[in-house]
Amino acid sequence: MKKIDLNCDLGESFGSYKLGNDELILSEVTSANIACGFHAGDAHVMYKTVLLAKEKGVAIGAHPGFHDIAGFGRREIPYTSGEITEMVLYQIGALSAFCKAHEVKLSHVKPHGALYNLAAKDPFIAKAIAKAVMLFDSDLLLYGLSGSELIKAGKEVGLRTVSEVFADRTYQNDGSLTSRKSENAIISETELALSQVIQMIETDTVTSVDGQSIPIVAESVCVHGDNEHALLFAKALRENLTKKGVSVRPIR
Amino acid sequence: MKKIDLNCDLGESFGSYKLGNDELILSEVTSANIACGFHAGDAHVMYKTVLLAKEKGVAIGAHPGFHDIAGFGRREIPYTSGEITEMVLYQIGALSAFCKAHEVKLSHVKPHGALYNLAAKDPFIAKAIAKAVMLFDSDLLLYGLSGSELIKAGKEVGLRTVSEVFADRTYQNDGSLTSRKSENAIISETELALSQVIQMIETDTVTSVDGQSIPIVAESVCVHGDNEHALLFAKALRENLTKKGVSVRPIR
Amino acid sequence: MKKIDLNCDLGESFGSYKLGNDELILSEVTSANIACGFHAGDAHVMYKTVLLAKEKGVAIGAHPGFHDIAGFGRREIPYTSGEITEMVLYQIGALSAFCKAHEVKLSHVKPHGALYNLAAKDPFIAKAIAKAVMLFDSDLLLYGLSGSELIKAGKEVGLRTVSEVFADRTYQNDGSLTSRKSENAIISETELALSQVIQMIETDTVTSVDGQSIPIVAESVCVHGDNEHALLFAKALRENLTKKGVSVRPIR
Amino acid sequence: MKKIDLNCDLGESFGSYKLGNDELILSEVTSANIACGFHAGDAHVMYKTVLLAKEKGVAIGAHPGFHDIAGFGRREIPYTSGEITEMVLYQIGALSAFCKAHEVKLSHVKPHGALYNLAAKDPFIAKAIAKAVMLFDSDLLLYGLSGSELIKAGKEVGLRTVSEVFADRTYQNDGSLTSRKSENAIISETELALSQVIQMIETDTVTSVDGQSIPIVAESVCVHGDNEHALLFAKALRENLTKKGVSVRPIR
Repeated sequence: MKKIDLNCDLGESFGSYKLGNDELILSEVTSANIACGFHAGDAHVMYKTVLLAKEKGVAIGAHPGFHDIAGFGRREIPYTSGEITEMVLYQIGALSAFCKAHEVKLSHVKPHGALYNLAAKDPFIAKAIAKAVMLFDSDLLLYGLSGSELIKAGKEVGLRTVSEVFADRTYQNDGSLTSRKSENAIISETELALSQVIQMIETDTVTSVDGQSIPIVAESVCVHGDNEHALLFAKALRENLTKKGVSVRPIR
Repeated sequence: MKKIDLNCDLGESFGSYKLGNDELILSEVTSANIACGFHAGDAHVMYKTVLLAKEKGVAIGAHPGFHDIAGFGRREIPYTSGEITEMVLYQIGALSAFCKAHEVKLSHVKPHGALYNLAAKDPFIAKAIAKAVMLFDSDLLLYGLSGSELIKAGKEVGLRTVSEVFADRTYQNDGSLTSRKSENAIISETELALSQVIQMIETDTVTSVDGQSIPIVAESVCVHGDNEHALLFAKALRENLTKKGVSVRPIR
Repeated sequence: MKKIDLNCDLGESFGSYKLGNDELILSEVTSANIACGFHAGDAHVMYKTVLLAKEKGVAIGAHPGFHDIAGFGRREIPYTSGEITEMVLYQIGALSAFCKAHEVKLSHVKPHGALYNLAAKDPFIAKAIAKAVMLFDSDLLLYGLSGSELIKAGKEVGLRTVSEVFADRTYQNDGSLTSRKSENAIISETELALSQVIQMIETDTVTSVDGQSIPIVAESVCVHGDNEHALLFAKALRENLTKKGVSVRPIR
Repeated sequence: MKKIDLNCDLGESFGSYKLGNDELILSEVTSANIACGFHAGDAHVMYKTVLLAKEKGVAIGAHPGFHDIAGFGRREIPYTSGEITEMVLYQIGALSAFCKAHEVKLSHVKPHGALYNLAAKDPFIAKAIAKAVMLFDSDLLLYGLSGSELIKAGKEVGLRTVSEVFADRTYQNDGSLTSRKSENAIISETELALSQVIQMIETDTVTSVDGQSIPIVAESVCVHGDNEHALLFAKALRENLTKKGVSVRPIR
């Protein structure tokens, strides 16, 4: 039986600023990537979000990003490899404290925003992240873009990796995502997005923008919970997958 | 044989800003309280300082403080009990990551500055801190002012506590420190400061400003490393204690 | 003809975090207090908000607060008088730059949150704020709680002050606001809130919680724009006042 | 009579963290670039530093940088042109408040660190900065690397620019600075550094690393005050220039 994990970024509120619908999206996903206070979130939000995820039976992951609340971790700040290892260690450690407090396992790590994007292309940054995860706990899963440098780096250091795919993004012939600057980067029709995910899971391929069938590893699908449309899509995806006989569940 | 621990606050540099003489003071103390990035320190400084302490064989502790780099954690910011538990959890977790990375044990927790002072007097804040330490790891030592609410709260939740005394501060009849606003708060003569420590260790008493002999528990002496005078005093204290037959060593 | 100013706190978004309905509330008020990046807001939000207020013909004020985005400026942080003067100067200056860029006058200053509340009761903090405003520009209006230490301090240094009243808060016999901790602190019925404002403007009195008629100076009413209810109330207040023959307009 | 301005970056302390020897270097320079709280400095440091510069009769400038205390403004953070204009406006405004408080003129603007370097090469960033300065006050001087995009952009918007040269850096044939990654980037011998400055001022040329004499505009020399060697060099430079008959004075 085919299986898939659905993951979502959560815990992105900050002080008086509220973001996302964490409670609702947690009913649809199987893994939660929780912000660690560097690009979003704070100690109180982390405490609450870990508890909420635990109550919903969702696997908990650290979601480290650049130290840039104002830029929401989306700006590529030029850190050294060493600094990246250190900032990822710091953030995993911080989140792990809330897992200890709530007596729940920290399951995985997925970098956020600019750090995720850089780690997909840059082998040095990918290695710096993989090293941090390995140093903290070799049993952690490392999430990265399917086919990315981060997945390679994770495997190289001996981590169990999780290849992430996107329902609403188109792919190039080399397996990379079409740049958001291109017109055909986004799949806005729900039916097409659902089909793409089903194809990826059932056949381990995706059809590129050129119509070519290319191989892809799909272990987890990234969904969003920041607006009603996203919530409805997540629900539809989960129902559709279940109907097709795909087991929607965490990686382990 | 009598024994004593010497502890010092370390890892207080931040980005391009350098503070303290961590390498030098680490040769004199037996326990290091390492800033966790909230009132001082950053991920890089924490990485380096944990390694340095490990190399010197010094016990490593988390030194959580208020989130206030600009105020160096010395301003009393009105947080709720819940927020204090959360911020202490966050900081212990962050530091623990660097202990994992360097394969060294996280040994203790000592709150910093305004958080330390509030925890000495306010039972709610003391409990909030003790709760965080207990939730993270019941095996951690909790450092607090000898006779303080923090020591009480630590014992109540079942933690092993460490009672801290000061060489260069005078004491009141009730065992509290003389307020820094008073003229006779500070012992500036090295000989008197050394004598006070020896008396506390050998007789479990301290002579108050009124000349009364009062009981005191002295398990660790707080020393400083931020200037040459402080470094010389730490060295003199260590040598003097050793000469008097006191074993200078970490708590465990 | 009686007249009144309606003021509102604006520009409280921060980076990716959105707050308030600035564009809608700007159609109802006559003065805008714009956050200066310390407790809320950032350079981009300030640039946009000053422009929006200018376009709507609303008087522009600086809304300085404590340096505490995470706490939204609502925590009483113990700064010295000197530090308060300095932080208010800094924030007025920062906002004034956007007024220069958009060629519009900076009209007033109203402190935010914990700084506002402290300045109502503490004469030293009140003077520190008044001093900063005076040093920056003696022509600025200083907003404060009607009857507060801040209004006194403003008058003493020679500033033109603006006494602020609240539609939805009850008053004590001494003219102070009923503490939010009391059950009868808030006026939740729209009609009663409107009546209170009309009475304050027409008779220069307010009826205290004890039923006593006490004198009050009402030059500006504080309204909110953070939710639909608040927007509707602001609209109702404006219409009601206009119908009663009160001129709703900025102070000058 | 030839003349030259000597400028230095100042006010870089932050909270409890001290940096530089502002009082000593202020006796050697004629213009001070004061950090504005984004990459260094804070409201208290700005208040004090403006006063100190005024007392020494040194021209006062704003020294805006990226919002990155931890990185000291040395990391190239990818901001949009609009964001750069806004952040420069904010910082000039903040510093101008302290000039108003001390009744002294704000004389110039010089960007800091990564912002300075980007503005030397990138015409869009150069224009964004020049626009901010112009919007704030068309009478401000704009400092930039001699021959840089920033100087061009400043002239284009109609600002009076000041071309900055370096005593201790070598130059390429095209007038650019030799990259710090090259071995021959730095002139470490005091005599050679002094000669280079004298040549630049007297002949409007500099000898490149290839031995070619190339034209250069030298209106201000950047000196440092962060260590004893730097202070001694500044003193030597000033004395040497005076002896050679060059008038060491602010631009106006």
